[in-house]
Amino acid sequence: MRTFADPIRRGVTVAPTSPAVIDTTSGQAVSFSELDRRCRALAGTLARLGLSRGDRVALLMANGLPYVEAYVAVPAAGFVIVPINTRLADPEIAYILGDAGVSALITDRPPSGVEDLVDHVIRVPDDYEALIATSDPIDDLADLHEVSEDDLAGLFYTGGTTGPSKGVMLTHRNLLANMWNTINCCEMRADDRYLVMSPMFHAAGTYAVLASLALGATQVTVPAFDPDRVLDAIEAERITTTLAVPTMMVALCESQSRQPRDSSSLRLLTHGASPVAVETVRRFHDLFPGTAMIHLYGATELSPLTTALANEQDELGGPRERSCGQAVLGCRVTIIDSDGNHLPVGESGEVAVRGDNVMAGYWNKPDETAAVLRDGWYRTGDVGWIDDEGFLFLVDRAKDMIVSGGENVYSTEVEQALMTHPGVLECAVYGIPDEKWGEAVAATVVPREGESPTVDDLTEHCRQLIAGFKVPRRIDITTDLLPKSAAGKILKRELREPFWVGHEARVSGA
Amino acid sequence: MRTFADPIRRGVTVAPTSPAVIDTTSGQAVSFSELDRRCRALAGTLARLGLSRGDRVALLMANGLPYVEAYVAVPAAGFVIVPINTRLADPEIAYILGDAGVSALITDRPPSGVEDLVDHVIRVPDDYEALIATSDPIDDLADLHEVSEDDLAGLFYTGGTTGPSKGVMLTHRNLLANMWNTINCCEMRADDRYLVMSPMFHAAGTYAVLASLALGATQVTVPAFDPDRVLDAIEAERITTTLAVPTMMVALCESQSRQPRDSSSLRLLTHGASPVAVETVRRFHDLFPGTAMIHLYGATELSPLTTALANEQDELGGPRERSCGQAVLGCRVTIIDSDGNHLPVGESGEVAVRGDNVMAGYWNKPDETAAVLRDGWYRTGDVGWIDDEGFLFLVDRAKDMIVSGGENVYSTEVEQALMTHPGVLECAVYGIPDEKWGEAVAATVVPREGESPTVDDLTEHCRQLIAGFKVPRRIDITTDLLPKSAAGKILKRELREPFWVGHEARVSGA
Repeated sequence: MRTFADPIRRGVTVAPTSPAVIDTTSGQAVSFSELDRRCRALAGTLARLGLSRGDRVALLMANGLPYVEAYVAVPAAGFVIVPINTRLADPEIAYILGDAGVSALITDRPPSGVEDLVDHVIRVPDDYEALIATSDPIDDLADLHEVSEDDLAGLFYTGGTTGPSKGVMLTHRNLLANMWNTINCCEMRADDRYLVMSPMFHAAGTYAVLASLALGATQVTVPAFDPDRVLDAIEAERITTTLAVPTMMVALCESQSRQPRDSSSLRLLTHGASPVAVETVRRFHDLFPGTAMIHLYGATELSPLTTALANEQDELGGPRERSCGQAVLGCRVTIIDSDGNHLPVGESGEVAVRGDNVMAGYWNKPDETAAVLRDGWYRTGDVGWIDDEGFLFLVDRAKDMIVSGGENVYSTEVEQALMTHPGVLECAVYGIPDEKWGEAVAATVVPREGESPTVDDLTEHCRQLIAGFKVPRRIDITTDLLPKSAAGKILKRELREPFWVGHEARVSGA
Repeated sequence: MRTFADPIRRGVTVAPTSPAVIDTTSGQAVSFSELDRRCRALAGTLARLGLSRGDRVALLMANGLPYVEAYVAVPAAGFVIVPINTRLADPEIAYILGDAGVSALITDRPPSGVEDLVDHVIRVPDDYEALIATSDPIDDLADLHEVSEDDLAGLFYTGGTTGPSKGVMLTHRNLLANMWNTINCCEMRADDRYLVMSPMFHAAGTYAVLASLALGATQVTVPAFDPDRVLDAIEAERITTTLAVPTMMVALCESQSRQPRDSSSLRLLTHGASPVAVETVRRFHDLFPGTAMIHLYGATELSPLTTALANEQDELGGPRERSCGQAVLGCRVTIIDSDGNHLPVGESGEVAVRGDNVMAGYWNKPDETAAVLRDGWYRTGDVGWIDDEGFLFLVDRAKDMIVSGGENVYSTEVEQALMTHPGVLECAVYGIPDEKWGEAVAATVVPREGESPTVDDLTEHCRQLIAGFKVPRRIDITTDLLPKSAAGKILKRELREPFWVGHEARVSGA
């Protein structure tokens, strides 16, 4: 398999009448034959709009059948998907549309100014369903353009450490490598029923789409995470596997202990994208004893799966309970020092990854690409060590990143928003422990002389510029200058540490 | 993963101290660390002999640790393996050594004239073990040469339909595609213990080598198939999976019913390479009730796995009991007519295959390559049809091939041997049913006027030229000219059919 056209082609061959996607929002349930026809109709529509090979198509909508279709058909037909985080503020969305040079937007939102930036808007569900119904499907998704494995399949935007967000360029090869890794590490089978409950605009939300299609397995979508709705769906749809972020696991435990559902079909829960407390794993295992658990570590730049701790529940209480597991089959993980030398077993350094899952680079950002892709290795920015059987243990994120409820927040981006407020002299943004979200965004702000911005002023200012989940939950205003290193670098650790006394968190991300 | 260096690299990372290979002949049991070191020493040895990137190294020996090592290390280091069927006659071996331009030969045979054709001979076990012990291992198998996924990994010789045998060119990409297909269709895991009992000079004998290495699973080798020894090994070594040809299945059933062993560890038996009687499947299932069965169809040209009938034992008595199953995950199977048009579900035609497992071509045989690789599809020469869920049913082999005990015999090759006898005017070679071997080679011979070769004469003549398994078991001598079509083509079907009345066999091959 070399392109996105291959997995769906196999699904429709081996399981034409099986349910491919069940959309619990619209109530639509489509077979593989029907999904294939709809994908071919969508590709035909995009071609008729005048899109050329490599043109970008942005997706700004909730999980559902159209998301699965666009995710598959757009790259399969030779175009490039640009999934956009629905929680972003309008200026952030506009930035992405412009940076990616998006030609067409598929969205479930009402008209807004942001759309002026693109030539074509297809609105879900009405426009979209009309086009699918009336468009002549092309004969085969691969017919429109010659697509090769090293062609771009999508631009996946992540927060920027040193400025606005960056478009992670993932090729067909990258995402098909992830498909094989997913099938292998999750032991996925044709009779699986995968619940898509994480947002599909994240790499983690779509990590099992190609795998499910290739196997002829069923995907069930919920528009957004709601623990009661999810548990009802697991029971009603006999879900066999899904991926959660730790905050979802906590919420599922709450809901299940309040109102137990039959979760006996759920053979596997994978989780990642965020630090998880061992206590959360233990509680989930207590409440869902028949469900195996896999802790995943990854990154958008890695398509995303990188390591997996299989049967995590069996590691509880053992020396590996806080490990992220071993490299998935198709990639290599190593630890390097600051000069790029590979370090031996047990020594801490930067986690670096090599394999067909490693991104092609950042869109139009050669310098930032060169900074992370060196000597064939992707440097994650995370700090960790590896034991004598390849189990990875993360100890810190070198990139100044906060993971809150599965969303990556780069502190620099929040700092830049705060710094545009006229009353701010200097500031530092960092993560503090949060029972619900794992980490919460916190800021310490030093006002300019003669200025006295309030917490509300600063919060409202940020809200105009950045997504709500990035806006600091806690702002401390102080007239003392921030602690700095000899080189003048703000010593955030000194600000952050008091909050973390008595807390611990397993570090991971996907 | 892109080259042979990758699977072993992962094995040594995740399972350094686990047993990688247990060789029941020599009694050697090596860990992944030790296997890796030995492979690096072998690669260093070949480099020191002066071999260059792409040079051919032939393997002519029984299954065992050295076979596994050479199979992996030679391609990983940038050379090309040429496994040779140990049952071939000297002229056939000489032909392959010359055709492939072999530089070095690793063999367990005593010196013979055939070796004059190669520059370097490494004799197993003495020379070989001495070199492994004294050679400086290279640091990494990938260090010697830049190896890309589309480089040649091996030349795998198969009998020729229209002349001497052809070298099937399989690349790293081809055999790694097969690794993923194997892991997926056999649900292979790190705790598997794979018994290598089919000869490793066949594609079927090595189909799980890379998969086992990548997973950190154990391979146990027996030098050659012996049913008692194999069942003892399954019991003693707690074997979880293996591949058999149908004749082996029959022999295992005989042995197991005579002297039952504990086969409870054996979770999976795959079989292929030969037509199998449904009765054989049923009997094996009765005697090994805890063992799932997968019927595989493939070809050397397809690296080899192509289709798989999973849980075959559950299909017994059903409409698919005689199917070869669905395409493995990484490839496509279609049915074409003589003009290359794709035929709909249910219509019979030639089986064609597409995917990363399809060979690069036949070595130095552009015309024969062009005849089978057309429009991106490999034409198998087999005739079959596909049902509405992609299950393949073979009805005939279009290539004039006899499959006897897992060995492919091209009737043309046997006919050419017979025709070199001065007493033979014309002849036809075809397969007839054989209880032990599935099919046996049979010939009908018309002597020249005035000549009267005996069956013994002809048999002895063949034995000088071709492998024993190709020599006809039955020769009918007749003075009637052979039945021919209007175009003058011998109508073998007329000769063959009387033998097959009341017999049936599922057609397959790998």
